[in-house]
Order: sequence, then C-alpha cells, then structure tokens
Amino acid sequence: MGEESSGFSNTVEVCFSPALFPVYFQDKNCVVVVIDVFRATTAICAAIDSGVEAVIPVATIEEAIDYKQKGFIVGAERSAEVVEGFDFGNSPLFFKDGKHAGKTIVLTTTNGTKAIDMAKDAYKVVIGSFSNLDVVSEYIEREDKNVILLCAGWKDRFNLEDTLFAGALAEKLAQNLRFTDLADSTQAAIKLYNAAKDDMYGFLGESSHRKRLSRLNLEEDIIYCLKLNKSTSVPVLSNGKIVKG
Amino acid sequence: MGEESSGFSNTVEVCFSPALFPVYFQDKNCVVVVIDVFRATTAICAAIDSGVEAVIPVATIEEAIDYKQKGFIVGAERSAEVVEGFDFGNSPLFFKDGKHAGKTIVLTTTNGTKAIDMAKDAYKVVIGSFSNLDVVSEYIEREDKNVILLCAGWKDRFNLEDTLFAGALAEKLAQNLRFTDLADSTQAAIKLYNAAKDDMYGFLGESSHRKRLSRLNLEEDIIYCLKLNKSTSVPVLSNGKIVKG
Repeated sequence: MGEESSGFSNTVEVCFSPALFPVYFQDKNCVVVVIDVFRATTAICAAIDSGVEAVIPVATIEEAIDYKQKGFIVGAERSAEVVEGFDFGNSPLFFKDGKHAGKTIVLTTTNGTKAIDMAKDAYKVVIGSFSNLDVVSEYIEREDKNVILLCAGWKDRFNLEDTLFAGALAEKLAQNLRFTDLADSTQAAIKLYNAAKDDMYGFLGESSHRKRLSRLNLEEDIIYCLKLNKSTSVPVLSNGKIVKG
Repeated sequence: MGEESSGFSNTVEVCFSPALFPVYFQDKNCVVVVIDVFRATTAICAAIDSGVEAVIPVATIEEAIDYKQKGFIVGAERSAEVVEGFDFGNSPLFFKDGKHAGKTIVLTTTNGTKAIDMAKDAYKVVIGSFSNLDVVSEYIEREDKNVILLCAGWKDRFNLEDTLFAGALAEKLAQNLRFTDLADSTQAAIKLYNAAKDDMYGFLGESSHRKRLSRLNLEEDIIYCLKLNKSTSVPVLSNGKIVKG
C-alpha cells in the first residue's frame, strides 16, 4: 500500500498476474508467496512432502531438455498437458508413491515457474497452495515482513483459483495485527474466498482453468489441489532450487 | 476468452489494470469500456450531461498547459488533487450548474485519461460509470462485439470501486445470451458487486481510494460517484475527443 501504510502493520498485497508484479514489487525486502493452485505449486508441495530433496524450476523447455539429458527426472507442462518426452507434467499425484525421495527433480510449467523466476530477488520466495495453507501462514508470521501474494494466473490473465488461495492466506494472516494493512486486491481476494470456501469446487465450476482441466479428465487433480492442509512443508527458493524451508 | 470461446456468445473480460491491457487487447475489433469511478469517468459523464460538447483527454500536464494557454477550460488531477493553475481536477460536481454547455474542455487525470489513450485503437471506446450503467449496457448490446471492461485502477494497481462497476455492467450484459462468455476476472467482479451492491459505500470503507478521498474531504464526490443511472449519456471516443455517443 506504500503511501497508505500506517507503519504499524506489514502490507499484504495480492498481485493478480505476473505481468503486474513489477508494479507491486517496489521493495525487495519482502516475502513473495508464489501461487499456482492448478497445479504447479500444489505439485511442488507434494514433491517436497514425498521426500524430494529439491525442485529446480526452469523457465523454458530448452533448459528442461538439458536437465533431462543429464539424467534428471523432469516435469514439463504447457497448456495443461505433459510435454512429450518428459516424465510428468505438473500433477501432484505423480509424487504419491514417494519413489523420488532424496532426488533433485526439475520442473517447467506454463505459469508457475515463470512466476517463481520473477520473484527470485525477494527476501524470501515461498511456495503456497491450499495443501500448505496453515504452515505457510505461520512461516510468514515468523518472518514479519511485507508480503506479496503472487498469483501465477493463466498466461498473464487473472484466474479464480489462485485468487481464492490468496484470499484464504490473507484472511489467516490478517488475524495477526501485524498483517492488517490490506491492499484493495487483498480485500477482494478475501471476499471471494469467503463466498467460495464452503464449496470451492462448485464456485470454480465456470472458471476457465477448471473447465480446461475437466476436458483433459483431470478431475482427480482438481480435487487434490483444493484440499486444505494435507502438507506440513513450506517449500522455499534457495540458490535457484526449491527446498524445504 | 480466446481459446475457450463457444462462438455463440461475445466474450466479456474485465481487465483490472491498464498494465494488463495488452494481455487482453488481442483483437482490436471490440468495445472497450474505460472505468474510473473515482472520479474521471463519472466526471466525463457529468460533463456531457451538462451539455459540454466534447472532452479532450490528454495524458500529460504539459499538453494540458498548452490547451490552457489557448483558452480552453482544463481539468488536471494528480493523486486525487487539483493541479495548481488549472480550472478543476476531476470532480463531477464541477459541471452541476451547466455553465460550460456547448464548450470543448480538456482533462488529464492520474489514471483515467491514460486508460482512454491505451484503448484508442479499439472499434469503440466507451466511458462507463455508475451514473450511466443502464445506457452503457444497452449501447454495448446494440454493438454486439466482444467487450473489455478496462478498470483504470490506481497507478496500475487493482482497485475495488472500478471492479464493482465492471461487475455491475457485466452482470447486466450477461442477462443477454450474446454476452455470456465470461472470463474469470468477470466472474470475480460480478461476485464482488453482488456482495457490495446493497451498501457500496460501506463495502468500500477500507478501500484505498475511498480513504484517500475522505482525507481530502471529498465525501460529496464519493456519494455522487456511487449513484446509479443519473445519466442518459454514453460518452464515446471519436477522433481523439469524447462526445455523446
């Protein structure tokens, strides 16, 4: 909120698109939570929970191919589908059997990994999803900095599911008096989360990305991505790798 | 919605910031509604209603000074205040006595005139505010094109009041089957408008711009800007001037 700040509370700003991030990211001394509910950030939480040592986010398919040739497990998703020749796309269910525990894997996705890259100069970059809502909130409270909730969106457009998670997290943070300086975008996200929370699946029924995933028969993924607090991991970016924070 | 379009309905997309406009403005053959509720677009509606012949929107103070030196009535607002040396800022109340009827006036504002300039290559650029909600909706239905509702926001950030108007207009349009292809941003704006409509003044109580205007003792302007359907004008951009459409 900049000019509006009371000085007694950290600001909590929701940024609805990576294309808006430079507008909000005026001071690097902040915590940025990257949000790509369907499905990159949910998958990263699942990976770290399953014992994966680190996830290397890369922006391009070319970089992903390089890692694949070096023998890494590599996930690559574009427009909600697995890119041919890679091990997985961005489904969190890929990690359910824990067989990649201890490994470092690589991931490139349409929206999520780009958002992570944009935020990399922040004091901390945290991976958020409904699966780690409570632990991310507790982590941010301990850091006690201004917060930007960066929605990965869909190809730089606003999307509903990332907004709902931003609203859920902002509402939780705002229960702490040190996180009550809420931007208009944050107030809107909280209102939307409260309208949706009793039936998020239904609320998202007409949303563009839920329809896109449904056409690809990814209902099981959708249901997984909307479950709260399955995870106790707070994945954070550290020297270009996402690791347990 | 591009790839999601059914082909039977026009798309209705809300763009929450001028900085996102290039993402949404992929096809120029569309109607763009520019929205700056507090206060530029409300003031333009009031000006045209009062008989003003045309409003020339300009982006910079320098251009505004040029017009002032040529003898035009010139409004200039920055950060919610009248710029020194100009006739008015962007208060709609400036036009209440009708004394500028028949004249061409000039206006530059923090957010609104910039948004108008960005949209100028669209098939039609329409000025929207709560004061002309119904007539703008009817105008768009007659045009029967894809629609972008461009919120001027605040210095490229999301703001609540422009979003509420976008939601009000989108909900009205969506009653027509030819305007039912709603982006996620549009669905969000409609939900927010419905949460707010019974008490918009209260809903906006914590919003950044309502607080900013209140500090400047502009409560009367706020109340004016939230009144529905005081106007029968649909101001449109034509050869660089805003005139009655």
